[in-house]
Amino acid sequence: MNDPAPEMVSACVLIIGNEILSGRTQDANLAFLAQGLNEVGIRLREARVIPDDAATIIETVNEARGKFDYVFTTGGIGPTHDDITSGSIARAFGVELIVHPEAKRILESHYPPGGLNEARLRMAQVPEGAVLLPNPISRAPGFRIDNVFVLPGVPQIMQAIFNELKHRLKGGAKMLSRSVSCTLGEGTIAQDLAALQERYGDLEIGSYPYFRRSDFGVTLVVRGTERARIADAIDELKTLIRTLGGDPQEGLADD
Amino acid sequence: MNDPAPEMVSACVLIIGNEILSGRTQDANLAFLAQGLNEVGIRLREARVIPDDAATIIETVNEARGKFDYVFTTGGIGPTHDDITSGSIARAFGVELIVHPEAKRILESHYPPGGLNEARLRMAQVPEGAVLLPNPISRAPGFRIDNVFVLPGVPQIMQAIFNELKHRLKGGAKMLSRSVSCTLGEGTIAQDLAALQERYGDLEIGSYPYFRRSDFGVTLVVRGTERARIADAIDELKTLIRTLGGDPQEGLADD
Repeated sequence: MNDPAPEMVSACVLIIGNEILSGRTQDANLAFLAQGLNEVGIRLREARVIPDDAATIIETVNEARGKFDYVFTTGGIGPTHDDITSGSIARAFGVELIVHPEAKRILESHYPPGGLNEARLRMAQVPEGAVLLPNPISRAPGFRIDNVFVLPGVPQIMQAIFNELKHRLKGGAKMLSRSVSCTLGEGTIAQDLAALQERYGDLEIGSYPYFRRSDFGVTLVVRGTERARIADAIDELKTLIRTLGGDPQEGLADD
Repeated sequence: MNDPAPEMVSACVLIIGNEILSGRTQDANLAFLAQGLNEVGIRLREARVIPDDAATIIETVNEARGKFDYVFTTGGIGPTHDDITSGSIARAFGVELIVHPEAKRILESHYPPGGLNEARLRMAQVPEGAVLLPNPISRAPGFRIDNVFVLPGVPQIMQAIFNELKHRLKGGAKMLSRSVSCTLGEGTIAQDLAALQERYGDLEIGSYPYFRRSDFGVTLVVRGTERARIADAIDELKTLIRTLGGDPQEGLADD
């Protein structure tokens, strides 16, 4: 694992699954992981959705684990023929895929006698050297190897495993955010907003237009690690909105 | 643009925006584009979510446009300082960012006299050589340069622009799919399913467990380009499910 700078610890999420790329399934894991990582001071810097294809998984995992402090994968660790994530990650690390004795024991005690068939035993396979990640719901564990965390795709199970492990992750400064909305057009406020961003180079000011049935407007989001600086920028934003004839509505603080 | 093989035309979607990576906004564009591309015979093979960072956009666009037949980007083409997609794509192609005369004319007629300020005029900027993509809702157009289609991030507008252009895309054989569900565990059916996949190498059989409040089970999805082959595989799957004591429920055909 890279030695992360104290200020910014980065992560990449790899969503593995043909069902997301075909549009059959709407991904529900990315936003959850993004928020959960932020809570412990880790910034999601990239996410990729890739197919159940061994060569693609191997190449993508190797690129991501060198580039980011943490990598989280979801999907492809079940018992069926299209679950090829564990084997692909073993190949990415150049190690054997082994049956983990503790994982096998967990599955043996979960299924009725004789129920742990050859297919289900695949869920005990991990790359040599991997550490198990406990699954409080359906027992079949995820695993970690080096800086790569391998999680299932089913949201409820992925979330349960992630919630068990997240407080052991080593984060940096937590990103805080506040937002203010108004019914001005983005183009009306854009120039002054750019000037404000210039003066607050340590903050990240995002502008997100919204369109609803009855109105449209813009939500301005201020992100940074210093609460007082964010408060200053939000105050200036409110004044700016009023000056331009708008009515600033502060959103709930996200932090 | 690569000369695509007739059987398989590929696409990559790049979702550009800090708000997706922070977990603030749940992406709604990927599933829409995946389904829309499939309708015209184009297979989405990868998607990436990347931040509003010029170097990352340039590198990612250049990698994707060499690797896939089509690239679609969403986000970052509005009037504010954090809208840097158009400029980044011009740099990726090594061309100038220019004010497109037709785009300027469209915006001039859309806003009241004097309303087209400097910020809004940014929405008329495109890489030199780009072709406009009409926007029937809020007028500010997207654009295409070579095999890269640049769309806004607001779902309603992105969808309207995409629906106008999709029938001009050159697709290959369309992927058809059918599915059948049952309340058997994945591990119960896995071994026979793998054998079935072996015999239907031209089809893609996916196994997706589901967990609801009252029950759990698995949905098996068969994808391919030959309707008759899919029907044969579905028939075999139903027989297999019955043999294992399950009750096959066919889903609505997705094609």
